[in-house]
Amino acid sequence: MAPLERPAWRYFSSDPAQRRVAQDLYETVADLPLICPHGHVDPRLFADPDYTFGSPTELLLIPDHYIFRMLYSQGISLEELGIPRSDGGPTETDHRKIWQIFADHIHLFWGTPTGVWLQDELHDVFGVTEKLTGANAQEIYDHIDVKLRSPEFNPRRMYERFNIEVLCTTDAATDTLTHHKAIQASGWQATIRPTFRPDAVVNVDMAGWGQAIDQLSAVSGVDVRDYRSYIRALEERRAFFRDMGATATDHAAFTAYTEILSPTEADAIFQRARKGEASADDARRFTGHMLTEMARMSIEDGLVMQMHVGSFRNHIPDLFARFGRDMGADIPISSEFTRNLKPLLDHYGTNRDLTLVLFNLDETTYGRELAPLAGVYPSLILGPPWWFFDSLNGIRRFFDLVMETAGIYNTAGFNDDTRAYPSIPARHDLWRRAASDWVASLVTRALVDEEDARQMVRALSYDLAKKTYKL
Amino acid sequence: MAPLERPAWRYFSSDPAQRRVAQDLYETVADLPLICPHGHVDPRLFADPDYTFGSPTELLLIPDHYIFRMLYSQGISLEELGIPRSDGGPTETDHRKIWQIFADHIHLFWGTPTGVWLQDELHDVFGVTEKLTGANAQEIYDHIDVKLRSPEFNPRRMYERFNIEVLCTTDAATDTLTHHKAIQASGWQATIRPTFRPDAVVNVDMAGWGQAIDQLSAVSGVDVRDYRSYIRALEERRAFFRDMGATATDHAAFTAYTEILSPTEADAIFQRARKGEASADDARRFTGHMLTEMARMSIEDGLVMQMHVGSFRNHIPDLFARFGRDMGADIPISSEFTRNLKPLLDHYGTNRDLTLVLFNLDETTYGRELAPLAGVYPSLILGPPWWFFDSLNGIRRFFDLVMETAGIYNTAGFNDDTRAYPSIPARHDLWRRAASDWVASLVTRALVDEEDARQMVRALSYDLAKKTYKL
Amino acid sequence: MAPLERPAWRYFSSDPAQRRVAQDLYETVADLPLICPHGHVDPRLFADPDYTFGSPTELLLIPDHYIFRMLYSQGISLEELGIPRSDGGPTETDHRKIWQIFADHIHLFWGTPTGVWLQDELHDVFGVTEKLTGANAQEIYDHIDVKLRSPEFNPRRMYERFNIEVLCTTDAATDTLTHHKAIQASGWQATIRPTFRPDAVVNVDMAGWGQAIDQLSAVSGVDVRDYRSYIRALEERRAFFRDMGATATDHAAFTAYTEILSPTEADAIFQRARKGEASADDARRFTGHMLTEMARMSIEDGLVMQMHVGSFRNHIPDLFARFGRDMGADIPISSEFTRNLKPLLDHYGTNRDLTLVLFNLDETTYGRELAPLAGVYPSLILGPPWWFFDSLNGIRRFFDLVMETAGIYNTAGFNDDTRAYPSIPARHDLWRRAASDWVASLVTRALVDEEDARQMVRALSYDLAKKTYKL
Repeated sequence: MAPLERPAWRYFSSDPAQRRVAQDLYETVADLPLICPHGHVDPRLFADPDYTFGSPTELLLIPDHYIFRMLYSQGISLEELGIPRSDGGPTETDHRKIWQIFADHIHLFWGTPTGVWLQDELHDVFGVTEKLTGANAQEIYDHIDVKLRSPEFNPRRMYERFNIEVLCTTDAATDTLTHHKAIQASGWQATIRPTFRPDAVVNVDMAGWGQAIDQLSAVSGVDVRDYRSYIRALEERRAFFRDMGATATDHAAFTAYTEILSPTEADAIFQRARKGEASADDARRFTGHMLTEMARMSIEDGLVMQMHVGSFRNHIPDLFARFGRDMGADIPISSEFTRNLKPLLDHYGTNRDLTLVLFNLDETTYGRELAPLAGVYPSLILGPPWWFFDSLNGIRRFFDLVMETAGIYNTAGFNDDTRAYPSIPARHDLWRRAASDWVASLVTRALVDEEDARQMVRALSYDLAKKTYKL
Repeated sequence: MAPLERPAWRYFSSDPAQRRVAQDLYETVADLPLICPHGHVDPRLFADPDYTFGSPTELLLIPDHYIFRMLYSQGISLEELGIPRSDGGPTETDHRKIWQIFADHIHLFWGTPTGVWLQDELHDVFGVTEKLTGANAQEIYDHIDVKLRSPEFNPRRMYERFNIEVLCTTDAATDTLTHHKAIQASGWQATIRPTFRPDAVVNVDMAGWGQAIDQLSAVSGVDVRDYRSYIRALEERRAFFRDMGATATDHAAFTAYTEILSPTEADAIFQRARKGEASADDARRFTGHMLTEMARMSIEDGLVMQMHVGSFRNHIPDLFARFGRDMGADIPISSEFTRNLKPLLDHYGTNRDLTLVLFNLDETTYGRELAPLAGVYPSLILGPPWWFFDSLNGIRRFFDLVMETAGIYNTAGFNDDTRAYPSIPARHDLWRRAASDWVASLVTRALVDEEDARQMVRALSYDLAKKTYKL
Repeated sequence: MAPLERPAWRYFSSDPAQRRVAQDLYETVADLPLICPHGHVDPRLFADPDYTFGSPTELLLIPDHYIFRMLYSQGISLEELGIPRSDGGPTETDHRKIWQIFADHIHLFWGTPTGVWLQDELHDVFGVTEKLTGANAQEIYDHIDVKLRSPEFNPRRMYERFNIEVLCTTDAATDTLTHHKAIQASGWQATIRPTFRPDAVVNVDMAGWGQAIDQLSAVSGVDVRDYRSYIRALEERRAFFRDMGATATDHAAFTAYTEILSPTEADAIFQRARKGEASADDARRFTGHMLTEMARMSIEDGLVMQMHVGSFRNHIPDLFARFGRDMGADIPISSEFTRNLKPLLDHYGTNRDLTLVLFNLDETTYGRELAPLAGVYPSLILGPPWWFFDSLNGIRRFFDLVMETAGIYNTAGFNDDTRAYPSIPARHDLWRRAASDWVASLVTRALVDEEDARQMVRALSYDLAKKTYKL
């Protein structure tokens, strides 16, 4: 069996001078606590002190659409991979068999971030010392399985071992935050904060918007019957989230389009949507308007505003019908910010009480629009590379395209944005290594000296995330 | 005279560690046979066992629009370069003079793929050991001229010496494949396969579409009078091509736009086109519909489907009027796939019997759209960088942008896509070197180990092309 | 205090082999005179032989929107930075205090071109040997202040010391070129040429177009009352600029859109604009038409034509209202050339008497559109990376994306495009270093040999700019 080799210099440039500096810089930040300001870990993990993860397949494969979309692309069905069907129909239940399929196709992940994270995770979190192959798949399954049954692999113990300082979840606007309440009531010494994500009540073209509005009425105590009460209900929910510890909101939109509707126009669209009669254009304009409204509210209540734009969700109708959302079939589109954000920025962009963190999936916007925007607007901050671009090359391109124009202090440091809880340390470690390597390339070319370089690496690894998200 | 230096480590990174690994990897694939699944070599070369190439200028300059467009960009007319005029008017006939012009301007090609291929070709195929300059131009002309008169420089002997395992040509849907028949009848032990390219009968806005339809009637034996008979005739031609050894089709379209027309709508456009009354929008919709139809046929007959999109052909009307197509004046446009391909993918994208290989000239789509699409759809495979991007930098960007998201197993390996027959080995060699260097950069950063790296390089150099194209 | 370290190998790759070649190449061009064919230095500097620069803050900070937009992005107001208000209202007048704010925020510029240029400028022009920090800010201020009072820091002496061979300014079409006349009359042996920039009289949607037309009448002696007299006046002004030594024109447009209006259509728009009734579409079409007209005039009078497209000017209305233009709030948009330029190119693109130099702020066009266009059209030449992309990474991307397709001989070498006079040597030096490093990377991979490499570096550093601009 081939050993799983993880040299100390891994992921750094192979140029000896750059590698040496990178490693020195990395060592100054490797052990800093993890700041996790944006992600999708289920708060349930921490609410129940005795939560357990189930089988290795249940923990590592079934919830990870990065993994199963790649297997699917090679002709393996999601049923064979045990992904639960929306209709409850039969799917593979033999977790060892699923694990074996994955191991037999491990070559699909060579050179991918998924491959890299998994390798680090297996080694560092589960103590696996051999490279996973079809041949040793069952042995490694056994090894992980034993670990998962031990009390050390309780999510709370892992949180402590991972050295997480703060972790923010992402929660629907209508969420009652029961799990967050349970965590707070339990007396456990950890900081798990909710994040206000109102997409389901804002995007009138999302399936279930009507029910979401009913729920909004129910949880807010505001009878949502028109645009005015709708806004009041949202403000109430934001206040509730803030009371529960939230410091940020998050907004997913197809594009960065913004505008300002008059209350009358906004109400007209709201009423049409209530009757199920909103057009595609209504949806686009209402979302654009609500993004601007959310900026206004952020200035008032101090919540940091995040925007994630540019994903064409559920691109494969068949997968959506049979398995639901988040099946790895979300495909990026090109994005535009210079003109789309202008209405919002005209009103709130120069307000120093607003922090608006931008994410998108079109790297061409990095140098062309985002860095110039963040390099002048006091409110704008650039989030780290998102999704497919949270990778060694993606991070390098981000640094190369953004930092010359915006500097590092108009960026938000790192967030792991993950559902895959045990991959959190691997993701932060990859970022810290990539940041160290990039800063090292400035040092070896005499662009910055080592003293400044150490401050840069620390900012990118820790300070900027904490400051941007007011943590 | 300066020697033409071709060190063993050429084109690899100058970092010693990466170079060492790259060279080791390269040596494992350098001598593998060449798989040429897509290109534009004229089958006539192989049909006539005694075919000869003419002068060095006739072989290397006049047919190569990469070369003469660059000379043209610096103010040299195509007449001076001996390019045949559509009206048969006079152009330069002194091939030595044309060769001299080229050699006097060799600096235009410094650092370009054309320059690199040519250098390798002159050295490896023709045994030239000096750097081509204005001063030694005539000497080198003589040297090549002598070679070209020898029996070793017969296309069949070169095919064998080049170690080509299979070579696919690109042929009009109405082609009777006479040359392919002659090759098969000759008993020569080589695999030359046709490829079905129906652009001239599909794109109703192409000059000569009407005549092409008449020809389609003639060669298919189907009286093409409406959309239904048109489809039948196309199916007949595909069957004929398959019988003649074709494993693939190829489709050039301005954009990746697809849709599904009803038979009635399709017929209405067909009839308008027959009367010369089709609008630009008709052409766009009909092509989009036919791409989807071709996907359906591919599922039925098993032919691999290729799409080349995003070239604005014949951008200079004056050159087109005087010299015709393929004069180096085709300019890329930006492309979009996420929305354009959706109608086709909604119908056929998850069908495992479809292989759809995508090519385009907008590198921004690599990471943003193509890799995410290929990384989930079972039918989608990404072709190697096309045209201007079949270059050292183009290949590196392709790897860097695609592989983290799609892995290497959702790509099609290499194809040379060339009309320039003697440049085939140089082009494959450049790809193999670039692939080895890129994989080496993964090894030296501990992203993959050397064992996996060897499999990756072999897949990229040989296996993937063979598998994708069912060769 | 940390020394300001400026090793001889700065900005080169850290790979020892590449660095060695880069440094050797750089040494062959480091001392060549500077060719400055495009920039925004005020000719007043040279007209008055006793011109002095004022305080360090007046020279280095207040006029540099690269610097103050970055400070503004971090919440510092432009008033605090002493930027003059349009209404003459109060702003900070204590230049030492402003300098201190800048030094306290020097970390914002780590790794940015502004940071790099400033470091080089402080060291090479002002003899500063310590790294600027908050702690030594006042000391360094004193040091520069003393220098600025000495006769050596007169602009003419600096011009000579900077080894400038020719410097072109950018001047409104209605400018009487008083300062250029004064320079020529003074007998000073230096070449300061004007450049004809007619934006204010061409873009009918620019504030003040009407007055600009009145001015045009006044200075040209042509009574501009219709499209025909307007064209005559422009031709007269071009002739005047040519007589005054101009070799080029410059045109800023929002997009690269071109078309050809009939004289009747052009006149109709002109008349609507005169009445203040031109629509946005009128403005777009008129600019597109005038670009084509300017190409025609360039063919007639031999002036090189420059186009700068793709900047959304004055993106922050509040800054524009309070401080005017050029406040660092100009944001790029995506650009398109393949279709937009076609009308102009259809008429004039293959004319060898036209030189059209293209600049834009969307790097995706480099490889996709610009290099293929410049690689075939005899008239097209690519300008160096502009604005945010005049940086180490920007230059490397430009070379990597353009040169494989267009070669270096379809590019225009370097121009510094700066208002910041004392930064000129630093900017040229950075380009020469970046060019040397890029060419070195071709040498170390055996793509070109050292003999050719030396010619390439010289062309990029000196010859191409001189030849393109006919200097």
